[in-house]
Amino acid sequence: MSQKMIHQVIEDNRKRYQDEFIELLQIPGISAHPDHRQDIYRSAQWLHNHCNRIGLQSQIIETEGYPVLYAWTETLPGRPTILIYGHYDVQPVDPAEEWKTPSFTPTMQNGFIFARGADDDKGQFFTALNAMDAIHTVQGSFPLNVKIILEGEEEIGSPHFLGFLTHHQDELATDAIIILDGVQYARGIPTLTYGLRGLCYLQIDVQGPSFDVHSGVYGGVVGNPAQVLVRILSQLKNEDGQVVIPGFYNEVKLPEAWERKELAELPFDENEYKHSLGLSELVLEKGYTPNECATLRPTLDICGIWGGYSGHGSKTIIPSRAGAKVSMRLVPDQKPHPIARRFTEYIQSISPSGVTVSVRELSGIDPLITSKDQPLFLIFSQSIARHFGRQPV
Amino acid sequence: MSQKMIHQVIEDNRKRYQDEFIELLQIPGISAHPDHRQDIYRSAQWLHNHCNRIGLQSQIIETEGYPVLYAWTETLPGRPTILIYGHYDVQPVDPAEEWKTPSFTPTMQNGFIFARGADDDKGQFFTALNAMDAIHTVQGSFPLNVKIILEGEEEIGSPHFLGFLTHHQDELATDAIIILDGVQYARGIPTLTYGLRGLCYLQIDVQGPSFDVHSGVYGGVVGNPAQVLVRILSQLKNEDGQVVIPGFYNEVKLPEAWERKELAELPFDENEYKHSLGLSELVLEKGYTPNECATLRPTLDICGIWGGYSGHGSKTIIPSRAGAKVSMRLVPDQKPHPIARRFTEYIQSISPSGVTVSVRELSGIDPLITSKDQPLFLIFSQSIARHFGRQPV
Repeated sequence: MSQKMIHQVIEDNRKRYQDEFIELLQIPGISAHPDHRQDIYRSAQWLHNHCNRIGLQSQIIETEGYPVLYAWTETLPGRPTILIYGHYDVQPVDPAEEWKTPSFTPTMQNGFIFARGADDDKGQFFTALNAMDAIHTVQGSFPLNVKIILEGEEEIGSPHFLGFLTHHQDELATDAIIILDGVQYARGIPTLTYGLRGLCYLQIDVQGPSFDVHSGVYGGVVGNPAQVLVRILSQLKNEDGQVVIPGFYNEVKLPEAWERKELAELPFDENEYKHSLGLSELVLEKGYTPNECATLRPTLDICGIWGGYSGHGSKTIIPSRAGAKVSMRLVPDQKPHPIARRFTEYIQSISPSGVTVSVRELSGIDPLITSKDQPLFLIFSQSIARHFGRQPV
Repeated sequence: MSQKMIHQVIEDNRKRYQDEFIELLQIPGISAHPDHRQDIYRSAQWLHNHCNRIGLQSQIIETEGYPVLYAWTETLPGRPTILIYGHYDVQPVDPAEEWKTPSFTPTMQNGFIFARGADDDKGQFFTALNAMDAIHTVQGSFPLNVKIILEGEEEIGSPHFLGFLTHHQDELATDAIIILDGVQYARGIPTLTYGLRGLCYLQIDVQGPSFDVHSGVYGGVVGNPAQVLVRILSQLKNEDGQVVIPGFYNEVKLPEAWERKELAELPFDENEYKHSLGLSELVLEKGYTPNECATLRPTLDICGIWGGYSGHGSKTIIPSRAGAKVSMRLVPDQKPHPIARRFTEYIQSISPSGVTVSVRELSGIDPLITSKDQPLFLIFSQSIARHFGRQPV
């Protein structure tokens, strides 16, 4: 197969690839909002049609939630199989007013396309589909077996994906899996990710009086749910950035020496990093570098908080209720359910009387790590090095 | 003047009074929302027409903010003058979904009218207007000089009311002021309020990264504004319900022995009180009774808090910013500006680096107390006792 011919086909089809990508980006497949149910199905249908157009067989596979788009190449017995993972659902757009360009009207600026999902994750898997289209155009077939699964519930914690994998494990048999939903360490630095932090995502609700009451009449008498909530949330981490939930670190594997060494060798311009985020300084767990905190260490963050009046001017109430969403990033060998249980027990133990505090688990994902010493890892690494002109980090 | 005839006129006009009241309640004069500017003016115009209909002279007086409706009886030289205060603006309706009946479609249930402002404050001053209509209908004039001012900015802290009073102090000269914007201690117990807590209302804003960032990528590295906010807010009160802002209590007058005694003698059914609010217990400042906490002691409450994602399901972000509204109820001799300054200094002193924390004052009102020993207080007290059949508390 001539790589030169493939590159030529890519050049020739650049405009079409871009137009098709823009079409896909226009579908607001937000899995977190039930209102966008139809858009999820439109996304799956669009991808189904697209895969058929570029020489793949394809099927929309229903799950107990949103469907998975499954596409595959004609089977070549004896050839290796790779399975590519991506997801076609996207994050909500709130706060909508923060967008500088419309979320679902893709906008080109300085050679970049801006839209919800352009990066996470439509851009990533669509690149692979284009590559396959180019290969297929040149030689009318594929040199190995490729299976592609595109999920529709990644942004809500993949609640039905394990069920899907279990149910279809025979069809999905593969020699390797490539997950096209990662981050590049920096522009121009190809990146091979061999581990991912897991997730434990919870919601805390605090219920006070049955209705909002006037702070002038009831202030000083009625327990304030927002006050209780902030007191609880302020007791989750200490001044050193450590999570203080009892047992939180029990199963955490400490970073190995070679991992810390490789991370330390990565280029990292802290000033540039802070500047890109509009920050004057980073807030780290004591004893760890920024790269270690962002990858090898578990964390806890408030993702959302609400309660009472947030409009113009002043409204003098004690809110009836308040709530927050909390995400914990997990590392091997932490597991979401035991962490959620310890979190809940801790919250209950520090909750005062006079209000009702409840906790529920919204999503949980195990952390993952694979060995860098596998032969396939080396092959991917060499292939990337050849095309990018440098070794991946 | 025959009281019997006046009572008869009230009976005869009950339906009309009710219809007119419902008309007034339908105008959504929310002073906190710029969108309701026209409704504020509609309210003032409606009241202007109404006052003219019931035998009063009337004028819409512009201020630097929303207008004051001023109405007055024909001047009787040598007779005493009373000035009645009320306000025609109303609180916002958020959260709109908590309303069991529509906010601005007055709904009758069990003999009560439910609508925004039915109690605070349209119902209170409209009762006085009806009383004046009945007197005027019976005798074609009034037995003393009455001046009425109805404000349009009470719910946003009366920012231009002092200016109005200063500018019009000659016209407003009076022997006594009756404020018709208070609470009745309990159903069937007439109440004369001789003091009111003041208000210092502030907003805290915490700015972190320039935009929301993914908690999987930046969690553990980027200072979380919601986390900073809850930590700040959790440091405003201690476990005994006391405000810990340095200097907060400096000017607070302790309750006098007779005040504590009178408060202790008021009927107070704590179980009934808790039940009406859907609470299992009250949260009080240590050392004070519920009635003391609700009237004689200063308080601090979070009226609203926001930041990040509060929609369906999970969104794994570190919010770019978070904020809260905080109300402090003040008692003599606290003043809003010094309290706001101490609050701001304290917040700045406990704010961490890595985020930007700002505080701004949204409204401030001095606490007020008058002497119970004034002759007019006694006259009001006797008048109430005669018509309600019991002494006011």
